[in-house]
Amino acid sequence: MSNEADPIESAFALDDSEAQVTRAVRRQGALSRTDLAEITGYSRAKMTAVVNGLIERGILTEVGDAPSEGGRRPRLLHFSTSLGVVAGIDLGATSVDVSIADFSGTILEHYTEPADVRDGPQIVIQRITELLLTLLDRRALSPTHVRSIGLGVPGPVEFSTGLLIAPPIMPGWEAYPIPDALRAVFPNATVMVDNDVNLMALGELRSGTGKDIDNFLYIKVGTGIGCGIVARGEIYRGSTGCAGDIGHISVDHQGPVCHCGNIGCLEAMAAGPAIARRAEQAALEGRSAILKRYLDADGTLTAERIARAASEGDRVSLEIIQDSGRMIGEVLAALVNFYNPALILIGGGVSQIGFQFLSSIRQGVLRRSLPLSTRHLRLDYSPLGNRAGMHGALALALEHLFEVS
Amino acid sequence: MSNEADPIESAFALDDSEAQVTRAVRRQGALSRTDLAEITGYSRAKMTAVVNGLIERGILTEVGDAPSEGGRRPRLLHFSTSLGVVAGIDLGATSVDVSIADFSGTILEHYTEPADVRDGPQIVIQRITELLLTLLDRRALSPTHVRSIGLGVPGPVEFSTGLLIAPPIMPGWEAYPIPDALRAVFPNATVMVDNDVNLMALGELRSGTGKDIDNFLYIKVGTGIGCGIVARGEIYRGSTGCAGDIGHISVDHQGPVCHCGNIGCLEAMAAGPAIARRAEQAALEGRSAILKRYLDADGTLTAERIARAASEGDRVSLEIIQDSGRMIGEVLAALVNFYNPALILIGGGVSQIGFQFLSSIRQGVLRRSLPLSTRHLRLDYSPLGNRAGMHGALALALEHLFEVS
Repeated sequence: MSNEADPIESAFALDDSEAQVTRAVRRQGALSRTDLAEITGYSRAKMTAVVNGLIERGILTEVGDAPSEGGRRPRLLHFSTSLGVVAGIDLGATSVDVSIADFSGTILEHYTEPADVRDGPQIVIQRITELLLTLLDRRALSPTHVRSIGLGVPGPVEFSTGLLIAPPIMPGWEAYPIPDALRAVFPNATVMVDNDVNLMALGELRSGTGKDIDNFLYIKVGTGIGCGIVARGEIYRGSTGCAGDIGHISVDHQGPVCHCGNIGCLEAMAAGPAIARRAEQAALEGRSAILKRYLDADGTLTAERIARAASEGDRVSLEIIQDSGRMIGEVLAALVNFYNPALILIGGGVSQIGFQFLSSIRQGVLRRSLPLSTRHLRLDYSPLGNRAGMHGALALALEHLFEVS
Repeated sequence: MSNEADPIESAFALDDSEAQVTRAVRRQGALSRTDLAEITGYSRAKMTAVVNGLIERGILTEVGDAPSEGGRRPRLLHFSTSLGVVAGIDLGATSVDVSIADFSGTILEHYTEPADVRDGPQIVIQRITELLLTLLDRRALSPTHVRSIGLGVPGPVEFSTGLLIAPPIMPGWEAYPIPDALRAVFPNATVMVDNDVNLMALGELRSGTGKDIDNFLYIKVGTGIGCGIVARGEIYRGSTGCAGDIGHISVDHQGPVCHCGNIGCLEAMAAGPAIARRAEQAALEGRSAILKRYLDADGTLTAERIARAASEGDRVSLEIIQDSGRMIGEVLAALVNFYNPALILIGGGVSQIGFQFLSSIRQGVLRRSLPLSTRHLRLDYSPLGNRAGMHGALALALEHLFEVS
C-alpha cells in the first residue's frame, strides 16, 4: 500500500442532509433525484447540492434508467461499490455464517460452516477473519475495503462496547475485545456486536416481513429461548441492554431447576434440550418405538427426528411438541397483553420441528391474551428463517457505515 | 363575542423551528435566548428570527432577568398567559380531578370531588364542564380561552379517536364521543383522551421522578391493575393502543374466574377487590378479630383499614397484603426480564396499603428476574401518587397544544 491518503481510508463523515440521502438510498435501493426529493422533502436546489457533493466524494454514483411513463427517463442513484464493502457475521452456538455486501446491502459473497463457540474467542475470531479474507479475495478486495462489520453472537452483549457479559454458553468470551480483534485485521471497519436474536429481529425489520411494522417480536427457540424487540421501527434494547431475555420467565413453580438457578424457567421446560430430554426419556422407557429406533440409530434425538416421528403418527412426539408450544404460547400471551405487538415471528433451530409447534403456540396465545390485543396480531414462523441473523448483521453494519458528524 | 377574528381563536400553526423552540420553553420553563440557542443548536441569527416571530404572534413574551455571573443580564422567554390555558382532567372510577394551567404547565386552579363513572358519560362530562367553567371563572377566563384538554379515563381508549373500547367498569361509555362533547363547550380546544395509567406514566415522565429516564413502567393497583409504558422517553401504546393491559396475565391456573372469562388473572387475585374479599372472608370466618371489628363498624373493608390492621399486628392482614405484593412481583419479574426498565413506579389506590406491599413486590421481582436486569433497577411508590394522573393529563394537553404544520 502507498503512503498517500487512500480515498477509502478517510472516514465517511456526513452532515445531516447527506446522512438522510444516503440512508434513503440504502433503505430503498436505487432512487432517482425526484424520488429523493419526495422522501426527504428537500427543495430541488438543496437536493442537487447534496447529491452532487456525494457523487464528487465517490459515495454515490448515477447510472442506468429508471422505469418512467414516457418523457424524460430519470437516472438512478446507487452506492459506488468501489468505496468498499460491509461484512455480516452470524455466529451461532454450532455454526457461523459470513457474508460481504455492497453499501446498498446486496450480498456479494456468502459462506457458512460448522463452528463451536466453546473453542473460545481466539480460535473462533481467527477463523471468522480467515473466512472473510477468502470472501474478499474472491472479489479481488483487500482487508482495508471492509468499512463496517456487524456480528451477532449467542449471548448477552453490552451494545455500546461490543463486549459479552456473563454469556452462559460461551465460556471464555466474557469481556473479550471482539471489536479490537477484528479491527486489527480490518483497520477501516466500524465493528458492531449484538445479541443474535436482536439481529434476527433487525433482519426481518430491514429485509423481511417486518419491513413496515412498527412494533413486533422475534422469538428464537433453540438451545435457549430469546426475544428481539422492535419498538417504533427500531431495535429496543432496554435500559441496560438485556431486554428480551424471556427464557428465564417462570412457567411452573414445580418445574425443574434451570442453569440460572431458578425453578421452572421457560427455557428449562420448552427449549431444544428439554424437548430432546423428554423424547429420549420416552424412548428409553419404551413409550415410543419410533423414537427408540431413531435414538438407537443416531445415539441422540434432534428436533428434526422428533418432528419426523410426530409426522409418522407417534403420539408421544406430538405431545412433547405441543407441550413445548403451549408453554411458549402462555409466556407470549402475557407479553402480548403487555406489549401489544402487531406481529410475532418464531425462528431458531427448534422452529423446524413442524407446524404443530406453531399451532400450539398460537393456541396458547389466543387462549390467554385479551381479544383487543390479538384481533390484528399475526403469529408466524420467521420467513427469513436461519438467514435472519445474517441479514440482521449486514443491516447493523450498514446502519453504522456512515459516521454522522 | 364579536365577529372579528379573535387572536386566541386562530390555530397555533407552527413550523418545525417554532415548534422546537416552544417545546423547549414548555419543558424547561423560562429560558434565555442563549439557553435556547444551545438547546436547539440554531445560529444566533436564526434564533432571533424564530423568537421574534413567536413574540410578535403573542405566543412568547420576554420578561425579567435570568441569574447571571455578572455582566449582561439576559432576559427570559415565557409563554404569554394572555393567549389561553390548558385543562387537565383525571377521571377515576370514583373521583374526578380537574385543573387549568398556563402554557408552561404552571397549575392555576385545581379542584377534586367524588364522581361515579357508572352514572354514564352525559352526567359525568356535564359535571366536568361545570367544574372547568368554575375554575375559569375564578381567573376571569372564558370557555374560548381553553386551547387544549387532556383527559384520563379508567378504561381502554382508542387514542387516535379518543373513544373508549369495551370499558369493563364504564357501562354506557363505549364509543361515546367525549372529544365532541367537550368541544361543544370549549370550541378552541384540542381534546386528547387517554387511559388513566398511561397519563400517570406521562405525569411522572414530564413532572416527576421519570424525568430523565428513557424506559420505565408505571403500575397502577386499584380496582384493576394496569401498566403505563415509557419507551425511549415517550408513552408506548402498542400496535392497537392496548399495551400495558397486565391485569389479565395469568398467575394461577387453579385461580378464580376473572370478569374477562379467563382463570387466575393477576387482577382477579391481587387487585383491590380481591384483597377486600379475602379480608372480609377472614373477618367472617373468625380468623381476625381486628378485621371483624372494622368490618362491623364500616360494613366493608378498605385497603386503608387492612393496612391499619396489619400495622396493629394482625397477621392475617399482613399475609393478604404480602400475597398480593408477591403475585404482582412475579408478573413484574417476567416484564423486567422482557422489558429491562430502569424504574418501576407503583401507584393507584391500593399502593396506600403500606410498605409491606412494596417490599413484597420487590422480593417477588428480585427472586425471579435475572441479575443483569435488576442490577440498576429502581422500584418505588409513585412520588406524585394520586396527582400523577392529573399531571399527565396536563402534560398531554400541552403536547397537543401547538399544531405543527
